[in-house]
Amino acid sequence: MIDAPENRAESLERLKTFLRIPSISTLPENKPDIRLAAEFVLGELKSAGLSTRLIVDSEGGGNPLVYGEWLGAAGKPTVLCYGHYDVQPPDPLDEWKSPPFEPDVRGDDIFARGSSDDKGQTYILIRAVAGLLKTHGRLPVNVRFLVEGEEETGGEHIERYVATRPPELACDAAIICDTEMFAPGLPTICVGLRGIVYGELHVEGANHDLHSGVYGGAAPNPIQAIAEILTALKDRDGRIRIPGFHARIVPPGDEERQAWTRLPFNEDEYTRAEMGARELTGEPDIPLFERLWARPTLEVHGIRGGFAGEGAKTVIPARAVAKLSARLVADQDPGEAFEQLQRAVAAACPRGVTAEFRLIHGAAPSLVDPRNRFIRAAAEAMTGVFGRETVYIRSGGSIPIVGLFDRHLGIPSVMMGFGLPDDNLHAPNEKLHLPNFFRGIVAVARYLELLGE
Amino acid sequence: MIDAPENRAESLERLKTFLRIPSISTLPENKPDIRLAAEFVLGELKSAGLSTRLIVDSEGGGNPLVYGEWLGAAGKPTVLCYGHYDVQPPDPLDEWKSPPFEPDVRGDDIFARGSSDDKGQTYILIRAVAGLLKTHGRLPVNVRFLVEGEEETGGEHIERYVATRPPELACDAAIICDTEMFAPGLPTICVGLRGIVYGELHVEGANHDLHSGVYGGAAPNPIQAIAEILTALKDRDGRIRIPGFHARIVPPGDEERQAWTRLPFNEDEYTRAEMGARELTGEPDIPLFERLWARPTLEVHGIRGGFAGEGAKTVIPARAVAKLSARLVADQDPGEAFEQLQRAVAAACPRGVTAEFRLIHGAAPSLVDPRNRFIRAAAEAMTGVFGRETVYIRSGGSIPIVGLFDRHLGIPSVMMGFGLPDDNLHAPNEKLHLPNFFRGIVAVARYLELLGE
Repeated sequence: MIDAPENRAESLERLKTFLRIPSISTLPENKPDIRLAAEFVLGELKSAGLSTRLIVDSEGGGNPLVYGEWLGAAGKPTVLCYGHYDVQPPDPLDEWKSPPFEPDVRGDDIFARGSSDDKGQTYILIRAVAGLLKTHGRLPVNVRFLVEGEEETGGEHIERYVATRPPELACDAAIICDTEMFAPGLPTICVGLRGIVYGELHVEGANHDLHSGVYGGAAPNPIQAIAEILTALKDRDGRIRIPGFHARIVPPGDEERQAWTRLPFNEDEYTRAEMGARELTGEPDIPLFERLWARPTLEVHGIRGGFAGEGAKTVIPARAVAKLSARLVADQDPGEAFEQLQRAVAAACPRGVTAEFRLIHGAAPSLVDPRNRFIRAAAEAMTGVFGRETVYIRSGGSIPIVGLFDRHLGIPSVMMGFGLPDDNLHAPNEKLHLPNFFRGIVAVARYLELLGE
Repeated sequence: MIDAPENRAESLERLKTFLRIPSISTLPENKPDIRLAAEFVLGELKSAGLSTRLIVDSEGGGNPLVYGEWLGAAGKPTVLCYGHYDVQPPDPLDEWKSPPFEPDVRGDDIFARGSSDDKGQTYILIRAVAGLLKTHGRLPVNVRFLVEGEEETGGEHIERYVATRPPELACDAAIICDTEMFAPGLPTICVGLRGIVYGELHVEGANHDLHSGVYGGAAPNPIQAIAEILTALKDRDGRIRIPGFHARIVPPGDEERQAWTRLPFNEDEYTRAEMGARELTGEPDIPLFERLWARPTLEVHGIRGGFAGEGAKTVIPARAVAKLSARLVADQDPGEAFEQLQRAVAAACPRGVTAEFRLIHGAAPSLVDPRNRFIRAAAEAMTGVFGRETVYIRSGGSIPIVGLFDRHLGIPSVMMGFGLPDDNLHAPNEKLHLPNFFRGIVAVARYLELLGE
């Protein structure tokens, strides 16, 4: 019923409407679009039959949380459906084959910023609940929705809200569709996520830009200093050299490591076709999935300062700023990791400059036990819909809400992912595989039915 | 006469007109301003009484050279006055106290982009010749002018032109006002310049930007690779680690080294007041003036790639470009230095990325003998006007034309500088000390008279 052609067509058309809203949370100029996207989600939940409201931060400034509930299944579990309506900036724009906010279906894929991360997957949850209510007039379990608009910028608003343990979030488990299937057609549940510490490294030399001819040989160069710090913090082989950084890491068990070796995987295809790279890098003595899922990283995202335009300018910049993040794994603590980073930056700072690492946001890593009943039911639902045994993987990305739900609500998060590895998250030409979108709606509906039995 | 108040006032007003033209040679959008500045110089020379014309590259595309001549002093030497009407970009704009192209006189200084480098100093030459012609109806020597508009971007046009050894450049010596006085009131002649190799370091990893969560631990990071290369090419102490790079360097002689120690100099004031820095950096075992004037440098000017805007974007960039330059000293060769840099970049390139160093422009270092008669006359003229013994220094900057005049015309260049060390060349709040401007005009006129005796 849910999968009837007219429902599919409506799901796709409504998804396109959602994707057309450029709800980029990191850019102030897109604030009105954030509001539009929140109201879109609110409208969808309301017309599905849920009681809804926008939760706006009492201190103002935050992006609204969209809340919805249907609590008519007395005695049944309560499930909290989480997603986010905000997206990453689309730049570099000139690398998109179709405009990022004009959804374009090419073959089995829909291309648009947010198609996979996370509007498309959030909409899977909404359409599953809407479909069940339309078909049966009721749901097999109690359902709450919490859809946020700051996931890509640190989610401060939802963090404050969840930390108050509000009664409307009382539930038994969360469902999150913001991860990916390990391979096309292979049902996948993600049981671990990396955390993150994201910040800015501010380096200052002289108090004004200097001519590199007149002062070169005596003047401190903040960009060279950033290079010194980056190479001190991570060696040529990708080993992080921050004292104490690895102390709390829980290595994966033998069983999990062996399961990872059985995953269908072609390293050459992954490297060349998916990443478009020449070769893989990173700690040479650690297997790939462990590097991606169970080891911390340190990456520089960009450097601002000096002259980087066309032509030549012979300037020694007064200051430079590097965007840096470290991914964290269980049981690293974001606060402790930030302090370790700060100390390592201070220790690596060359003479003539000051260097300061400033936090933008942090999130704890998470790891759930696959034997949990909510995880097992999700695996059964996905196996049924996709016709293959569900695999358990981890993800290298960070979904801070999982750690918040664990810490403040004491609930496990079930991460049913319907993205694919080549979805180009945070990059040009982001896409969602439409068969996964439609099957995802069926699988989530089936999952809720299983939980209600 | 030249120094009469009405001449001073006119010199200042005309200089302001010159400085109002944003003739930034590195930015294509300022092409019309380049033309305006060339025509300004042409008009000034013509109204002074010289025969003038614009020399436009036959291959097109280059910025016009302004040529002028007065050849009525039979039997007297011929002097070639060189300057440039193009300027550096003014960014960062928000650090200027007055707009860069609205000349502002504050106290004894005039603030504007190009005030010292080199419109103000070029205009000293023009006003000296105009003043002599106005006063005496003739000049004591034969004079040619060659004023270019590509000095800040590599001067390809003038290089091709000078290399043809055109008859209109036949002369005995060149005068260049594009350097600085060692200290306020201390007449100074510059006898050595560093050369330069300026280029871009292009580093490519994957063929598209990647999510740092999903791929961090396996993906190559081009900015981290640039950091690896920068730190491999220059160590923490500022020692360049490029094989063969130092082989041709001619160290200064004992006499010159000793003269440098007698220069009036307060290192603390230089560091804190002039540079605005905490401490000096660079090769620890080499004295400051030798580091600045007689040692090569390697500086990074900026890095483009990834995300460096406000907020957070967790991207591993596909590619990054660093602007790099090396200053060279006698007898380093720009072509050889470029090849050494290319090889060192290739050797330092970490795995997973490609790195290529591409030349933007190069210039040879130069060194002239202070016993030359044209240098001695200049020293006498400056000593007379400023009332103090003229000192000989070198400059850390690069004036490629000096090497070209030497190689193609076989003439020495006399570098009479009227800038000051705190003129903020290539930086916000560039200025020219007006007493130097007015005295410079008198000193150049006196120099021409001495040469004609």
